Amino acid sequence: MNRQQLFANILRKRSFLCVGLDPDLDKMPASLEGDLFKFNKAIIDATAQHAIAFKPNLAFYEVQGVKGYKAFEDTVRYIRNNYPDVMIIADAKRGDIGNTSRMYARSFFETLDVDAITVAPYMGEDSVTPFLGYDGKWVIVLGLTSNKGSHDFQLTTDATGTPLYKNVLSKVSSWGNDSNMMFVVGATQGQLFEEVRQVVPSHFLLVPGVGAQGGSLAEVAKYGMTRECGLIVNSSRGIIHASSNDDFAQVAAAKAAQLNAEMAHILENYRFFS
Amino acid sequence: MNRQQLFANILRKRSFLCVGLDPDLDKMPASLEGDLFKFNKAIIDATAQHAIAFKPNLAFYEVQGVKGYKAFEDTVRYIRNNYPDVMIIADAKRGDIGNTSRMYARSFFETLDVDAITVAPYMGEDSVTPFLGYDGKWVIVLGLTSNKGSHDFQLTTDATGTPLYKNVLSKVSSWGNDSNMMFVVGATQGQLFEEVRQVVPSHFLLVPGVGAQGGSLAEVAKYGMTRECGLIVNSSRGIIHASSNDDFAQVAAAKAAQLNAEMAHILENYRFFS
Repeated sequence: MNRQQLFANILRKRSFLCVGLDPDLDKMPASLEGDLFKFNKAIIDATAQHAIAFKPNLAFYEVQGVKGYKAFEDTVRYIRNNYPDVMIIADAKRGDIGNTSRMYARSFFETLDVDAITVAPYMGEDSVTPFLGYDGKWVIVLGLTSNKGSHDFQLTTDATGTPLYKNVLSKVSSWGNDSNMMFVVGATQGQLFEEVRQVVPSHFLLVPGVGAQGGSLAEVAKYGMTRECGLIVNSSRGIIHASSNDDFAQVAAAKAAQLNAEMAHILENYRFFS
Repeated sequence: MNRQQLFANILRKRSFLCVGLDPDLDKMPASLEGDLFKFNKAIIDATAQHAIAFKPNLAFYEVQGVKGYKAFEDTVRYIRNNYPDVMIIADAKRGDIGNTSRMYARSFFETLDVDAITVAPYMGEDSVTPFLGYDGKWVIVLGLTSNKGSHDFQLTTDATGTPLYKNVLSKVSSWGNDSNMMFVVGATQGQLFEEVRQVVPSHFLLVPGVGAQGGSLAEVAKYGMTRECGLIVNSSRGIIHASSNDDFAQVAAAKAAQLNAEMAHILENYRFFS
């Protein structure tokens, strides 16, 4: 999915919502008997009209071994076949030496055919660039994450007082462009979105941390939005596990609809619609 | 496998060799028809006597999807059942927010039951600590990697002139201890091992980059070895793909034996044996 298609989907759905498909076995209704794909299928059908992206996190599948990995593949295929206008982001946080990252790129962009994959920047250029050069595919590099641990290294400063995350945004963005690269910036980082936009004014940002982690959608939009929206805001637990009973899909739909309404309101205020 | 067992294995085998199980489909003999587990089984049987660890890198399995993930699981199980004294390191370079890292810890230490997993430090404390607290298990955090991209961020300095990798070693090591944590330091970094040892004098280091990547075993030993060896030196392509013909396992055995002999010589010179 290219940039124009992504923005068109945002305008059409009046949404920049990404639903995180991180099914936690402990929070699923017992009637599903731990069937991750069955759970996802219900969530996908219930929320697809409100979402422009789905983001399965590999950790929640690998915990079931081969069975879980199959559920992950089935999930990707189900979205691809039934909701081709919804972007699929594999939240894998990969990144390795060049020849290994090339292998990951093949796994995710050829074997699985997802639209985007998250990658950690610590290993530098040859760990990131193998994911570029696939038409309509995206690498989403960790910039400033939503968790407490983001302070440990990402906010440490160099001799000029520049924090590491800014050096990451600046250097990594020079390896690609705003049509094949995005950055993860946590919603919990509030006004730092202003700082982020100084370095990457036009890149899409994947924004986790709204909902369970406490980030504010209004603040993210205020400081992070661009003329092409430029935001994909993720909610996982706040949607998919809002109920752990058999009504989980209905409750998820309601939660997604609510976020969609808030986003439509924000988009209207930003005069995307004439 | 705890620290004492690891050191005992090193002394007994006179080796600190880790064989990287990164099977590249393009370099396997055609007769194997892309069967990763069959390839690994032959490599494992041929090299186990020379190795104290095996390190499968997930990228090389995920490229085959579910089939590849199953080959990975089969490989882990085969090593566990047949060579229980050889450490299994899942080279996965994971790392995510706390609740997700906990999921990865369950995947690798409970579902799969490997001995160690590699983790990237960019997301900080809550991405690393969920891997601690498993008896006899290890988290191996990226310190200074072997690739060219290691210069992009790992060697950038803070206001006091300290490079990021040293701040990573220093801060991360404070979250665990030298019995549940190791660090990745690339063999290509040569004399920087002296610097590394100033910060983490007693931790085991997992050292990739000898062989195909050009690092020197003698230099690594000279600057990195501790009184308990403190090194696990990995070779992947240089062993497993030394031949791409049907004699691949025999050639791998010879390559592993050669490294084992070099290591035995180094260990003797360091007077580990009286």
